[in-house]
Amino acid sequence: MTETTTERRAGRPRSERAERAIVEATLDLLAAESGVAGVTIEAVASRAGVGKATIYRRWPNKEALIVHALATVKAPLPEPSGGSVREDLLELALAMGAERKRKYAKCFWNVVGSAEKHPTLYARYRQDVIEPRRDVIRAVLARGVRGGELRADLDLEVGVTMLVGSLSTRVPGEALPDGYAETVVDTLIRGIGAPGS
Amino acid sequence: MTETTTERRAGRPRSERAERAIVEATLDLLAAESGVAGVTIEAVASRAGVGKATIYRRWPNKEALIVHALATVKAPLPEPSGGSVREDLLELALAMGAERKRKYAKCFWNVVGSAEKHPTLYARYRQDVIEPRRDVIRAVLARGVRGGELRADLDLEVGVTMLVGSLSTRVPGEALPDGYAETVVDTLIRGIGAPGS
Repeated sequence: MTETTTERRAGRPRSERAERAIVEATLDLLAAESGVAGVTIEAVASRAGVGKATIYRRWPNKEALIVHALATVKAPLPEPSGGSVREDLLELALAMGAERKRKYAKCFWNVVGSAEKHPTLYARYRQDVIEPRRDVIRAVLARGVRGGELRADLDLEVGVTMLVGSLSTRVPGEALPDGYAETVVDTLIRGIGAPGS
Repeated sequence: MTETTTERRAGRPRSERAERAIVEATLDLLAAESGVAGVTIEAVASRAGVGKATIYRRWPNKEALIVHALATVKAPLPEPSGGSVREDLLELALAMGAERKRKYAKCFWNVVGSAEKHPTLYARYRQDVIEPRRDVIRAVLARGVRGGELRADLDLEVGVTMLVGSLSTRVPGEALPDGYAETVVDTLIRGIGAPGS
């Protein structure tokens, strides 16, 4: 990602256009019903209108390309403003909720669904795309524990998973109902808050 | 399902064998990378070694067949023993956790992933397979509200979704860590429990 940004800043329009076309072609193929199976360097090249060599110059293999493409759609969560834990979690919850309608949401289901068949791709996706997002939530919870807002014995992974799970296990593509994120965060805060706080 | 059970009880081994072969072929195809797209009556018939007419005698279309096949793998959750809300939720959570390793878990990801492309199938899957399971959890929560164990203003849907989401948003196919279900249920109970109870 860093290299890409540098390239863009340096202003290399043709190269940038090619990269965008490649990333979009990858996401289009990934969102199609055949999912990961439908993404081959050949299919991406043909769809993006570039040669295979152009792809291999930037990405060593299909996995690297897919993970890069997913990262362009699912960026790390925005750093919350640093109010109370409740305020920060709510900001993050609303940000996650807002992502649900995005065009490429289906890509992620397809990658998760093929985790067993493509364990390396899935592991890399977790590490490069999902974990940086969870880190943002983890940091809010850790700050809450340090500051005494949250229980001293809080298992951060449980807190992160409960927040993410409560927001993501709904009908795919449907917007969250009004007030849903607030209720989830309030419930979670009661569950993980320091006793009597 | 009822008809099938009756048929089985009446002992019609050839018909039963055919039905099993059809259901298994459907699940095999559904678990494959092409997911829902790969399930056609033709492909199922060929894989199960039966004629297409045999399939159409039991299921009017591909959707009905897929939903029936999914229901054979994901039965309604077992009725909990009716102890405290915590005990009942923990029983349900452990039952859900135990399903994670099942051979056909991937079928469900594929159906959810294709929800946008196959909205009728997805809606029917929700109604026939998922909702009966959520009903079991809903009933436990409703009993808790009536009995005063849970908050009077509890939104049952939020409670159900938080429990299911916390257990399902993990690396697919991986067993839940020891003690995870307990921690989730305890956290949730603190979040939804009646104040001071």
